[in-house]
Amino acid sequence: MVVAYHGAKFRGFAAQPGVRTVAGDIAKAVERVVRHRIEITCAGRTDAGVHAWGQVIHFDTEAAAVADLESLQRSCNKMLGPEIVVRYADVAPDGFDARRSATGRTYRYTILNTPTPDPFRARTSWHIEAPLDLSAMRLACDPLYGEHDFSSFCRKPPSAEASLVRVVRNAAWSDIGHRAVRFEITASSFCQQMVRAVVGTMVDVGLGRKRAGDIAAILRAGDRSRAGQLAPPHGLCLWDVNYPDFSSTLCGFAPVWRPRTDQEV
Amino acid sequence: MVVAYHGAKFRGFAAQPGVRTVAGDIAKAVERVVRHRIEITCAGRTDAGVHAWGQVIHFDTEAAAVADLESLQRSCNKMLGPEIVVRYADVAPDGFDARRSATGRTYRYTILNTPTPDPFRARTSWHIEAPLDLSAMRLACDPLYGEHDFSSFCRKPPSAEASLVRVVRNAAWSDIGHRAVRFEITASSFCQQMVRAVVGTMVDVGLGRKRAGDIAAILRAGDRSRAGQLAPPHGLCLWDVNYPDFSSTLCGFAPVWRPRTDQEV
Repeated sequence: MVVAYHGAKFRGFAAQPGVRTVAGDIAKAVERVVRHRIEITCAGRTDAGVHAWGQVIHFDTEAAAVADLESLQRSCNKMLGPEIVVRYADVAPDGFDARRSATGRTYRYTILNTPTPDPFRARTSWHIEAPLDLSAMRLACDPLYGEHDFSSFCRKPPSAEASLVRVVRNAAWSDIGHRAVRFEITASSFCQQMVRAVVGTMVDVGLGRKRAGDIAAILRAGDRSRAGQLAPPHGLCLWDVNYPDFSSTLCGFAPVWRPRTDQEV
Repeated sequence: MVVAYHGAKFRGFAAQPGVRTVAGDIAKAVERVVRHRIEITCAGRTDAGVHAWGQVIHFDTEAAAVADLESLQRSCNKMLGPEIVVRYADVAPDGFDARRSATGRTYRYTILNTPTPDPFRARTSWHIEAPLDLSAMRLACDPLYGEHDFSSFCRKPPSAEASLVRVVRNAAWSDIGHRAVRFEITASSFCQQMVRAVVGTMVDVGLGRKRAGDIAAILRAGDRSRAGQLAPPHGLCLWDVNYPDFSSTLCGFAPVWRPRTDQEV
């Protein structure tokens, strides 16, 4: 399933007992249709308050109810909408795993750079009053490209051996008009809080507190305290997931929605 | 003041004891700055759940605090934001009255016409799954132009003598892209629930339940039961207010924001 959600009311994606999570809500809805417990695997575990437009999930079932995909999608959306929406549902090919089969994830981070806040964009963008130097922020993207240890930009993982090496394929700021700027970053995968730490540090560059030339050294230092503030979660959105081997199955839905480039979240 | 607000959490604009309203919240904030009670007058009283981008309000004060308008605006936004935002504040010219000086109000109503809902537009648009016939809805606008008694499209006012005659200067549907359509209507003023009743009736036309040719007869009938369903409040936004005599004062802020035509609400 490809699912979109507004993260405001959820304690993140991953199911946790006693709190409202995206996976918890989706599982409850799907379980009412398939009539057995399911385990949900997702492409990218988003933190509390983070949104998604193109999150991909899978679960195993042999229930006959799944044969009618349109009806499954409709039932789920009735129970989950409008905070969570199943945009697409299909039977995955053999061997497909929402997390392990994914070869790339794209996140978007939106900043509203206006003197006054905006009630309609407040929940999906970070409002920054002081003017940002977008050219400096663009320069700051260069050092991120390629394979790096992102320890400086990540929350320490519980297991000390977990690698924080990631491959960034694209990282760019664009002016999306209406006084908003957007950061888009594509990588093999992300470690926890990576995009928010990168954005927070780049905002420091945009505000003149750090220089674009500092980013390479911060990255090399491998020390979280060297990077900047953590950007708030509500500006972040898991935008897209890549599955090159399964493109015919999972990307069929995409062209219809692709024109929505600069306004939806 | 020109104020924008997201209507979801308010029981409408007008202050009422015991419930959260836009005027109630604004008054509380302003009163903390000017240090006396104020009475707020607005250009258009929006119902519960209705949004505003260009609501105009005025209040009387002789407090010195108002001399520093930027600081007044900033203090208010700190207390009110991001649900309510003061976009502009100025000392009004003698004789200005937010309601009585206004010669026109423009409302916008947004409909998302997609097979599945959208978590990011759900709170600012009406989601309609079945495809709408936009050409028919456009034809249905014609009979609205000019001066009419809008009894068929309004909630009965408490006083039987209150006139429901209004002058509609503009009424049009446009395709704003991304599978959304928007109704924009400008009139001298509006009676209660008028835009929502008009939109609801036009959606009946768009769904083939009524014909565009029926609108003129419904209008002539002067009978609320002849019109269609009431469109939900969350698709509606008070977009702009006209003050021709005070244009230099109140419209100075506008050009900066005008480019935002089809995405903000």
